[in-house]
Amino acid sequence: MLTKNQFKRILSLRQKKQRLKQALFIVEGPKVVQEFLDSNYELMEIFSISEKYAIYKEQHTPIDLNTLQKISTLVTPNEVLAIFKIPPPKEVDLSSLILALDGLNNPGNLGTIIRLCDWFGIKDLVCSKTSVDCYNPKVVQAAMGSHVRVNIHYVKLELFLEGKSETIGTFMDAKASIYDAEFPNKGVVVLGNESKGISKEVASKLKKEIAIPRFGSIKKTESLNVATAAAIILSEYKRRSIER
Amino acid sequence: MLTKNQFKRILSLRQKKQRLKQALFIVEGPKVVQEFLDSNYELMEIFSISEKYAIYKEQHTPIDLNTLQKISTLVTPNEVLAIFKIPPPKEVDLSSLILALDGLNNPGNLGTIIRLCDWFGIKDLVCSKTSVDCYNPKVVQAAMGSHVRVNIHYVKLELFLEGKSETIGTFMDAKASIYDAEFPNKGVVVLGNESKGISKEVASKLKKEIAIPRFGSIKKTESLNVATAAAIILSEYKRRSIER
Repeated sequence: MLTKNQFKRILSLRQKKQRLKQALFIVEGPKVVQEFLDSNYELMEIFSISEKYAIYKEQHTPIDLNTLQKISTLVTPNEVLAIFKIPPPKEVDLSSLILALDGLNNPGNLGTIIRLCDWFGIKDLVCSKTSVDCYNPKVVQAAMGSHVRVNIHYVKLELFLEGKSETIGTFMDAKASIYDAEFPNKGVVVLGNESKGISKEVASKLKKEIAIPRFGSIKKTESLNVATAAAIILSEYKRRSIER
Repeated sequence: MLTKNQFKRILSLRQKKQRLKQALFIVEGPKVVQEFLDSNYELMEIFSISEKYAIYKEQHTPIDLNTLQKISTLVTPNEVLAIFKIPPPKEVDLSSLILALDGLNNPGNLGTIIRLCDWFGIKDLVCSKTSVDCYNPKVVQAAMGSHVRVNIHYVKLELFLEGKSETIGTFMDAKASIYDAEFPNKGVVVLGNESKGISKEVASKLKKEIAIPRFGSIKKTESLNVATAAAIILSEYKRRSIER
């Protein structure tokens, strides 16, 4: 059974302010929870309708489906909800390609991009402080456990880029195509906000601009979704790295 | 003011069965509605809180925000809701690359893929009859008007592929990498269902298999989201077509 305090704490973690204050976040569903359990993330509490989590003795609280439905952030709650500790910030590894996000808004997009970083072996994802929180429950679900293999950093992006030599921004109307542009072995590729793109402050720190060429005959398609743009850029970067 | 019949008809179009029966679908928001108004799609009715749509005399019904909220499928209704006619099926143009989807489930994924086809100039998108309906309101919103530049076909995919020489399936564990594989000038590239991939029936008709290589050091990332996989494949195909 859940105590009133546990119930309150779980619900409070839906708010970014509370997540940061308590340094805790929610993970749901057996697959994603298992990814975090198998990682260096520290388990704080685990609530489940299944007995298989009873091995996490002190941390485990058995609950019924009705209670799970009350604490879950999912439309269809799935067996288990766990609370993990947000790890302390790590150093960014500047020796390989880094992806940076400037003001990314949509939790689903961030989750998909974390998954893409995992797939393409990008170790560090740097987000502007104006971007959506990577421990937002929707981001955690969309990333499907890839958090455990990608280091996510929140920084003042314009300061982070300052003085770095290989900084590339993706813009809708840049002249250089990603298919022709030189990709550095190490450096930072920046993607912007879903509707506004890269902010002026960040753009002023960028050394190069690239675009994904449009091929549609009537050039009206507004823009690519930022997660699909990230997919195309990371694929192109990795393809080149094989050829190098 | 809305009549009871109009109200009923609009709500009925949330169901696939009713859309197919009436050959009508819903479009919302000024940007997306404008894309359809500027196209060959035939406008049937338009409901708006803005006077600017009064030019569509007989088709136009002025409404208030309260009514818009009642008929809208969006969390935040936006100015206008229009009903357009579903166009009759066209012939598939077999002279260029075609993208095919086998049992795609998620409306957001289909919308993103329609947008990608538009961006990359893919004229024909062929969906198995088991795929989500492209006139589902969520698909229409996610595609952001790209419907008007992409012909979407629903077919028995295994029959459609029968006898075609260049048919390529994307599989998680195919040996050929998309970076090495030959891409035909014309042919069909098939992507599968979000969790089950390509069905056995469709797989048996495919001549080639390709995969997007994984680069993550710990090879645990489950799979790429199908829309990001489509983005990577279309980008790679178009890059090659420039070089040809």
